[in-house]
Formats: sequence, C-alpha cells, structure tokens
Amino acid sequence: MKNDVPPGAGSIYWRDNHGVDEVSNTMFRTTIQVETHGEGEIVNLTPRIEQAIAESGVREGLASIFVTGSTAAVTTIEYEPGVLSDLRRALSVIAPADIPYAHDAAWGDGNGRSHVRAAVVGPSLSAPVIEGRLACGTWQQIVLLELDVRSSRQRTVYVTVQS
Amino acid sequence: MKNDVPPGAGSIYWRDNHGVDEVSNTMFRTTIQVETHGEGEIVNLTPRIEQAIAESGVREGLASIFVTGSTAAVTTIEYEPGVLSDLRRALSVIAPADIPYAHDAAWGDGNGRSHVRAAVVGPSLSAPVIEGRLACGTWQQIVLLELDVRSSRQRTVYVTVQS
Amino acid sequence: MKNDVPPGAGSIYWRDNHGVDEVSNTMFRTTIQVETHGEGEIVNLTPRIEQAIAESGVREGLASIFVTGSTAAVTTIEYEPGVLSDLRRALSVIAPADIPYAHDAAWGDGNGRSHVRAAVVGPSLSAPVIEGRLACGTWQQIVLLELDVRSSRQRTVYVTVQS
Repeated sequence: MKNDVPPGAGSIYWRDNHGVDEVSNTMFRTTIQVETHGEGEIVNLTPRIEQAIAESGVREGLASIFVTGSTAAVTTIEYEPGVLSDLRRALSVIAPADIPYAHDAAWGDGNGRSHVRAAVVGPSLSAPVIEGRLACGTWQQIVLLELDVRSSRQRTVYVTVQS
Repeated sequence: MKNDVPPGAGSIYWRDNHGVDEVSNTMFRTTIQVETHGEGEIVNLTPRIEQAIAESGVREGLASIFVTGSTAAVTTIEYEPGVLSDLRRALSVIAPADIPYAHDAAWGDGNGRSHVRAAVVGPSLSAPVIEGRLACGTWQQIVLLELDVRSSRQRTVYVTVQS
Repeated sequence: MKNDVPPGAGSIYWRDNHGVDEVSNTMFRTTIQVETHGEGEIVNLTPRIEQAIAESGVREGLASIFVTGSTAAVTTIEYEPGVLSDLRRALSVIAPADIPYAHDAAWGDGNGRSHVRAAVVGPSLSAPVIEGRLACGTWQQIVLLELDVRSSRQRTVYVTVQS
C-alpha cells in the first residue's frame, strides 16, 4: 500500500505493502514503514493503525504500538498544528538544541538531544480496541515523533493487536 | 457503583455501575468513569483497578491502563500530597502556565499546556497481576493526571486484564 | 543465575535464580532482581530480557516490562555513556536537585526529585518479539533508570512475554 494523500499534515508515505501477520490465533502484527522528513516532524498514525486493526479482524481487544529506534517516540496528542509546535517547544526545554551533549562529543552525530527527548517520551503505548476502533478520544491521535536531526529517515512502527 | 468515600484525596466519584466485560476467554475490560475537579487533580486509580482485577477473576496476568482524551495522562507515583505537588511543579517546567501557546492562539481554549504535559507523560501503562494484585510497590500507585483547565471533567479510563 | 560480568557498564548482579513462570499457555513471566548502586545508574536490561524471551520459548509475540517502585523508571535509549549522562542532565531540568520538595519537607527522605522524574518517564513499556528477539533497534536498549538517592537498592523488574 502506498498513500499519496497522507492522513495528516506533511507528505507521508506508507511504504508497507504487506498486510497483517497472524502471530497466533489471538495476536496480529502489522509492520508500518513511515518516511519522515526531519527533526520535529509528527506523524498521525491513527488512520494507519485503525486500518491494521480492521485487517486483523479484531473487534474487541488491545492494540500495542512500538517504534524501533532510539531517536523517535510514540505518544498521543491532538493532531493540530498549534499544539504540535507547542510540544516541540516543550521538548526543547527538556533537551535544548543549543547546549553541548556528551553523546555528540563522543560520536559527532549531533543528535544527543534527539536521544534524550525520545527516552523521556518513550517508545510505546497500548490502547483498547472497542467495536473495531481505537478507544482514543476524538481529539486524541496516536503519533510518531521524529526527533532525529537527519533530513529524512525511514521508521518502523509495529502494531500488535490482541483479542 | 458509587463511592461517596473516595479512595484518595479529594472527592472522587466512580460513576461506572456495570462490571467487567469479557472480551475473550483471556481478556477482560472494565470501563471506569472518573469525575475530576480541575487542573492538577491527581486521582489514585489503584483501588478501583484492583477491584476490576478481582471482578475479572484473573489471578496471574497483565493489566493495561489507558485514559481517553488528550489532556489527561496515566503514570505511577507515591500517592502522597507532597510529591503530587512536586510533580505538578515539574509539569509546569515542561509546559509553563505563563507563556503563549500556539494551540491557544488558534483555538482559544487555554489548555495548550495541558496537551503538552499529557503528551510527555503519556496515556497508558501496563503492570503485572500477581496473585490477584497489581505488582506495584507499596508506595507506588497508578494515577490519573487531570491536566485540563476546565473546572470539572468526566474521564474514561479502561482497564484491560489479560491472562 | 548470577552474572559476575554484567551486560552493561557498572557492576550489575542479576539476583534471580529461578527461570520463567508459565502464567498461561500464552503468557510467561520472568522476575528479574537488579542491584543498583546509586542515583543516576542506568542498567541495560536488554540481554536479560532476551534471555527471558528465549526461556519462554516464545518466538513471535509481545514483551511487557514493568519496574516495581516509585523511584525507578523504564524506557529505551542507546546504551552509550555520553547519552546516558545527557539523559541525567535532562531529568535534572525536569526535577532539579537543588530546589525544595514538598515530599522531602513532609517525609525527610530527600528523594522528592526521584519520585517526580520516575513519574514523568514512567514504569513500563511493551515491545514486539520477532523471531525470538526484541524488535528494538541496534542502538536501542531497554533500560532501568535508578532514580533514588540511596547508595544501593534491589529492584524488581517483571518481563511478561505473550504469544
């Protein structure tokens, strides 16, 4: 599957073209590849997760989301441009861009702040599935935070649906 | 069920009056309605979650907690007034009350900081169930953080117990 | 089991000497005891979790990690000394060491900041198990953050593996 019209702001391409994997008769896993376009991009995963839930056939259960990599994070927020920029500002309080990082001194890749922000927010969450939908609020989307400083990255997000 | 004597500080009313839902033969879900009374209220969910576990009949398993809505969060903390106020102070460092928010400029609801704080703490956690009890420490309670600025809200928290 | 050669920096002793508990035919739990050596120690749990997964026999599933206690936390980060010190600095922004805490005023145990930092990071995460391994990135380790101020503590971490 490839969506040329992304579900959120920015140009998001879903690069996964295989469906759901049946891990057991009560567990289904979908692997989502997301192309991101730089530090601070926030991707609305909710439409893609709900598609994964639909493809799993699970109507009542639990969905667990996990992002691979130590410079990205997963949380929920209202997917509205203003509050997304407010979140970016808060992350820059926790780990400012303009201070030295021991990680950068040792490795020179300039993403010490990315690692720190990702560790504080965390890589995973779990939400109930009710009548085939996430139990999120109307203004509560599950989002991927791209925190790395590279101009683009391909991120792998796993959706595990249990019944 | 309605508790006129709340399990924690403040006047908490549990508004749910139906029991556990059997999602499958290994998964049980309880929906908890919590009435909150303003920004910064922190509700001790542990007694209600342990009741949900008891009602599920699960003695050994895993409990996943999720709050619906983008201006509330779930975590663990010692349910002691001093440390709860210390947590509130820390959240005001991450997202101060006295700075402008792009969310507020766009929407005028004055809760930009609430969204940001909720996104950093996160909406969910999972804890083992051992001998019918949460595997939390004696001074570790599962709490709901009400971060919105409204004078009262009704919050929905889901407890999913798996065996 | 006792490892005299720890899997990460510092002298870590795994004190658990019993294997995996079969909670049900799809859920396995391993209890890990970790001895920590003071505030700011960060323990790489990944090798021990992967051992627990191997002992469970689960090849495809989900692993949930939880730490008991309100002055420790679990997250993922690159297990590299520089970025670990960068994370410690960020936690000291959220809850500085040199300000008064209401918790300390009431209880005098001097660990108000520990509680606050632990609540913000959180006690749990869940990651997929794929072909018997955690779905973490090469530079993404699951870590225990010892945030308490005591010179040593014994921490209990639960690994719940579901298939």
